[in-house]
Amino acid sequence: MHGQSSPRSRASLTPDDWIAGATVLLTDHGIDSVRVDVLAKQLGVTRGSFYWHFKDRDDLLRCVLNAWRDAATEQIIERFEGEHADPRALIKELISLPFRGRAAERAARIELAIRAWARRDAMARQAVDEVDARRISYHAQCFSALGFRIAEARARAFALYAYEVAESILSNQGNAAQKAERSALVERLLLTRLDPA
Amino acid sequence: MHGQSSPRSRASLTPDDWIAGATVLLTDHGIDSVRVDVLAKQLGVTRGSFYWHFKDRDDLLRCVLNAWRDAATEQIIERFEGEHADPRALIKELISLPFRGRAAERAARIELAIRAWARRDAMARQAVDEVDARRISYHAQCFSALGFRIAEARARAFALYAYEVAESILSNQGNAAQKAERSALVERLLLTRLDPA
Repeated sequence: MHGQSSPRSRASLTPDDWIAGATVLLTDHGIDSVRVDVLAKQLGVTRGSFYWHFKDRDDLLRCVLNAWRDAATEQIIERFEGEHADPRALIKELISLPFRGRAAERAARIELAIRAWARRDAMARQAVDEVDARRISYHAQCFSALGFRIAEARARAFALYAYEVAESILSNQGNAAQKAERSALVERLLLTRLDPA
Repeated sequence: MHGQSSPRSRASLTPDDWIAGATVLLTDHGIDSVRVDVLAKQLGVTRGSFYWHFKDRDDLLRCVLNAWRDAATEQIIERFEGEHADPRALIKELISLPFRGRAAERAARIELAIRAWARRDAMARQAVDEVDARRISYHAQCFSALGFRIAEARARAFALYAYEVAESILSNQGNAAQKAERSALVERLLLTRLDPA
């Protein structure tokens, strides 16, 4: 008979629980594995209770993207509008970002899974593009503050952001000394002024 | 009764057909979607015929990785041991790689799917690390040929490779003029000699 097992009280689950569960599934198994029935089973609730919170699977996926974007944007604002007023110190900090241990590793895994999804989904693509654009803009402000003209500040910002993205993807390459050497090189190069071409 | 449908002749399918089909599934739907039954259906053959060519799913996945690694390595060797003797010309070419149109886009999609897989699978991790290491080594030879000391050549090689990897991931950022500006900047910076720190 139905209803005789004792699923966790539906009242105790919030939309955030579903979003967090979906994010884990996405990260560990890819977007196609994010299915309402699988999630319900994992959360120990009935499939039907999903619809108390979400219209459908697409609605859940939109919330997953929004949660990621909000967290990413929050991070950016905190970093750039926080204690560091000095653009050089900020650039130094940005260069060290990929080396921040387990939290950085987990964030990188989530982000890579979302990027893979974005290669074949317009909604995910839009979220990723927005976050990337916003991060690059903030990076550009640092270089503008150092006196680089706008177009060059933007190009340097892209190069710095590209390094951060790639360093987190290529984290198995090189030992600690090599990582220190390359991050120091990138920092010096990005702060070096070039003679007019 | 069995055997009355007419699947495509098993003799006409090669291991490469299975590998190609698995690579498409991996790229479009992630590694968890690469399943023998799904592939057999797509290829229009019986599930059993899979075992004429492969021991099991893991065997197929190993072949997918080997095929990708071979293609990637072949590309590297062709590029670096081919016509370009001049390291500056080679560096210029490497910087332009992410802008090579549809073939580059498809290769980037496959590679991103393999990188996402590698985040949670040791066999895929090893293949990706090998290809990255090999590419970085070849890049380093260019900078060594330009007279940079070995450790600095390696750091510059990493920065160049990081730019290539990130540019293909961040391909939606910026218009054509901005892309031209940032690739010109990266080229100039990576060829600029720094005063001793």
